[in-house]
Amino acid sequence: MSLAIKAQHIANSHLNLKLITPTNKTDFTNTKFRPKPIYRSNPLIYSHKTMQTTTSHSVQNLSIKSSLIEPDGGSLVDLVVTESQRGLKTREAESMPKVGLTKIDLEWVHVISEGWASPLRGFMRENEYLQSLHFNCLKMKDGSIVNMSLPIVLAIDDETKERIGSSFNVGLVGPSGDIIGTLRSIEIYKHNKEERIARTWGSTAPGLPYVEEAITPAGNWLIGGDLEVLEPIKYNDGLDHFRLSPKQLRKEFDRHQADAVFAFQLRNPVHNGHALLMNDTRSHLLEMGYKNPILLLHPLGGFTKADDVPLDVRMEQHNKVLEDGILDPETTIVAIFPSPMHYAGPTEVQWHAKARINAGANFYIVGRDPAGMGHPTEKRDLYDPDHGKKVLSMAPGLEKLNILPFRVAAYDTVDKKMAFFDPSRAKDFLFISGTKMRTYARNGENPPDGFMCTGGWEVLVKYYEGLQTEETTQQPAAISP
Amino acid sequence: MSLAIKAQHIANSHLNLKLITPTNKTDFTNTKFRPKPIYRSNPLIYSHKTMQTTTSHSVQNLSIKSSLIEPDGGSLVDLVVTESQRGLKTREAESMPKVGLTKIDLEWVHVISEGWASPLRGFMRENEYLQSLHFNCLKMKDGSIVNMSLPIVLAIDDETKERIGSSFNVGLVGPSGDIIGTLRSIEIYKHNKEERIARTWGSTAPGLPYVEEAITPAGNWLIGGDLEVLEPIKYNDGLDHFRLSPKQLRKEFDRHQADAVFAFQLRNPVHNGHALLMNDTRSHLLEMGYKNPILLLHPLGGFTKADDVPLDVRMEQHNKVLEDGILDPETTIVAIFPSPMHYAGPTEVQWHAKARINAGANFYIVGRDPAGMGHPTEKRDLYDPDHGKKVLSMAPGLEKLNILPFRVAAYDTVDKKMAFFDPSRAKDFLFISGTKMRTYARNGENPPDGFMCTGGWEVLVKYYEGLQTEETTQQPAAISP
Repeated sequence: MSLAIKAQHIANSHLNLKLITPTNKTDFTNTKFRPKPIYRSNPLIYSHKTMQTTTSHSVQNLSIKSSLIEPDGGSLVDLVVTESQRGLKTREAESMPKVGLTKIDLEWVHVISEGWASPLRGFMRENEYLQSLHFNCLKMKDGSIVNMSLPIVLAIDDETKERIGSSFNVGLVGPSGDIIGTLRSIEIYKHNKEERIARTWGSTAPGLPYVEEAITPAGNWLIGGDLEVLEPIKYNDGLDHFRLSPKQLRKEFDRHQADAVFAFQLRNPVHNGHALLMNDTRSHLLEMGYKNPILLLHPLGGFTKADDVPLDVRMEQHNKVLEDGILDPETTIVAIFPSPMHYAGPTEVQWHAKARINAGANFYIVGRDPAGMGHPTEKRDLYDPDHGKKVLSMAPGLEKLNILPFRVAAYDTVDKKMAFFDPSRAKDFLFISGTKMRTYARNGENPPDGFMCTGGWEVLVKYYEGLQTEETTQQPAAISP
Repeated sequence: MSLAIKAQHIANSHLNLKLITPTNKTDFTNTKFRPKPIYRSNPLIYSHKTMQTTTSHSVQNLSIKSSLIEPDGGSLVDLVVTESQRGLKTREAESMPKVGLTKIDLEWVHVISEGWASPLRGFMRENEYLQSLHFNCLKMKDGSIVNMSLPIVLAIDDETKERIGSSFNVGLVGPSGDIIGTLRSIEIYKHNKEERIARTWGSTAPGLPYVEEAITPAGNWLIGGDLEVLEPIKYNDGLDHFRLSPKQLRKEFDRHQADAVFAFQLRNPVHNGHALLMNDTRSHLLEMGYKNPILLLHPLGGFTKADDVPLDVRMEQHNKVLEDGILDPETTIVAIFPSPMHYAGPTEVQWHAKARINAGANFYIVGRDPAGMGHPTEKRDLYDPDHGKKVLSMAPGLEKLNILPFRVAAYDTVDKKMAFFDPSRAKDFLFISGTKMRTYARNGENPPDGFMCTGGWEVLVKYYEGLQTEETTQQPAAISP
């Protein structure tokens, strides 16, 4: 069975994903954030806001009024041109000077066009770039603040800049040569790579994966402007139906009559410690008075570093976790977050959280060292593992989001299962890092019983076996990253 | 005449500085920012706010109600213990574990204790440090935002950390061994120098002056807490009477019945281009309807890099500029800003502006490439010269300040004077950089007539002559930096 077919199979199995029909008439235009019930005593809950008391959470089954959190800026950005305009807009794009997009650029076009970065309507102009770089947020015309921690920018080289000349608009050409859309009322400004890297990563050490992939080889200019895409971005890798836009996700949450949505960002396989945390969070939300909390299991689908597990394998693994009942398929939505990964720790975790607000999540689970990695040249973590959740809890523009800090789960060698770490019997616990997990799978060894469901573990073992076969036969990798 | 005596002489000459008498009864507790007159048409004025119309600016001579801008956080921080408590507080400090301060640390103690960094009440704890590093601002308990772009932190080494142990409070010991004050309810956290440098400077290149002087040699821990100083910080260099605190400056402005205060931050000698700009700004403020705009000529007095002109020489030079009538002594207040210099461009200029709000300035003149310098290892400016004013105009917490961008002045070779640059006859203008100016002075050459007043120029020539004499006789520098 090919991977594409497998992925299709995953989609058709137990995941709670149905196509969104245009007959869903729920009104999303006036969504409002529902006051949250009181929950002061539980140390799990971080929040900027003092939670408000509410005793009733009754959900009317027939005409549910959406209680989803408002997107940043008040309405979701959607930059896909309408069917009726497509012909005209395509001809216009064809007549403009062209800017070529890399694979990562295209991922950002996808992100912006669907409104994950709402209220951003295109690649950043200098004004937005500087605010993002210095303040991790943008000030709107009405004086309100939205979070915007990563510069979302498009680099061009000298030759392209010269070719654009004094044109106001440019056409965007995808990696395979097809016209993707346009950038209008453009502004071209300097791409000071050193400053961008230093302020985004807090390091300029050689070996930062996104920097090496997307910044060092990029041009010395940035081009900002208003984006339009001619058609929704598709990858034709058998996983597109998992790539639900924020609008589609909001419809799904509404269809599920969700009164709380808690998002779990991940770029790794789900082990039973993750599952424990997600299930525990759901229990807490129920205790808080929510009637129907829905989990958004939201693997990142864009660029990841070479030694991370590829997206299609992860999707298959996630499917097994749901098939095996480790997570409840009835209250879980699995979808792909199309953003590329920066590995920029406290700066990036804000982006991860902000984008999920736009998708309708009002609770966000933050792990130890989110979006972190080892320092590329020194023997230490690149970031203080606690800074991610601290910075997230203080970030301007994220006040409306409830931050749920990750409780540390580890393998309890007495109970033979993943459990929340109990410092009073620390010696009973075994910490299995991502590196350790990959080493087990790579060597065909089994992790301790109860670390991960069998089906999910088999997916990983098969993937690493395949990698080794490739390595021995010296073939280029057949599995796309 | 020794330099100290010279400086005293400066102070007693034409500068508009008088000792503040305790009989000045003006009420500063309820200062309010006066609505600004309309001034939309002039491109000189940058402002976050739309200016409001007001026609009358009448100043009542006898019982003037201060119209000075509010300090950040609503009231000025003042951390000097009262005379009556001094004995007790000194004994307490003596009983605490000690932390030694460097010269630069002491400058920060000075800055914090007088309220330049209001509402900051001590060296930053991690919570404040992270907000400063990531967002360039602090969120107050009431949800309001104050600007805080530079981490104001105190580093300690492993040995000091161990010595402090679990104590809650520490005594601070100055570079010459005297007890300066205390830091209470301390918090010790990691000093990740790479991240601090990268996020503050947007560069980690070797050769950043403040980094080499104050960060690289510092310890791997930061200690935050509530500061108290036992006595006002003094340097006994003959210039202390120029070191007016924000409180003293506010009294001065009020004594002058200022209805607008425009601040000019500088770390270089004043040439006629600077003077043109300051005088031009005053004219504009008068046109705007202000009756008595006061210039705060505010040289930075803390750490500067080795090739900058030392403070005492600059003070003497500034005095000549006032003596020669290039600036009007009646409407100018010269005082020393005690902060050390970071040379951190757009990040630092926010600090320079914010501190002047606390001193009562509601207009701030921002230059090309403020707080900038050449890149230490590449042949380019470290910062885009326009970013300083752009970032300043967008900075959270500085909305109440009117930003006045520097108009470019250059030497007009036709009119033989400093004039605003006219791009239509660009070839007539000569740009004389700080480096060029220092080269003239060092070589005993004269700059073109009209570049700087004769008295001021002579001060510089004498300084550089002195330097050369020292260099040839191989004596260590007798002039303190």
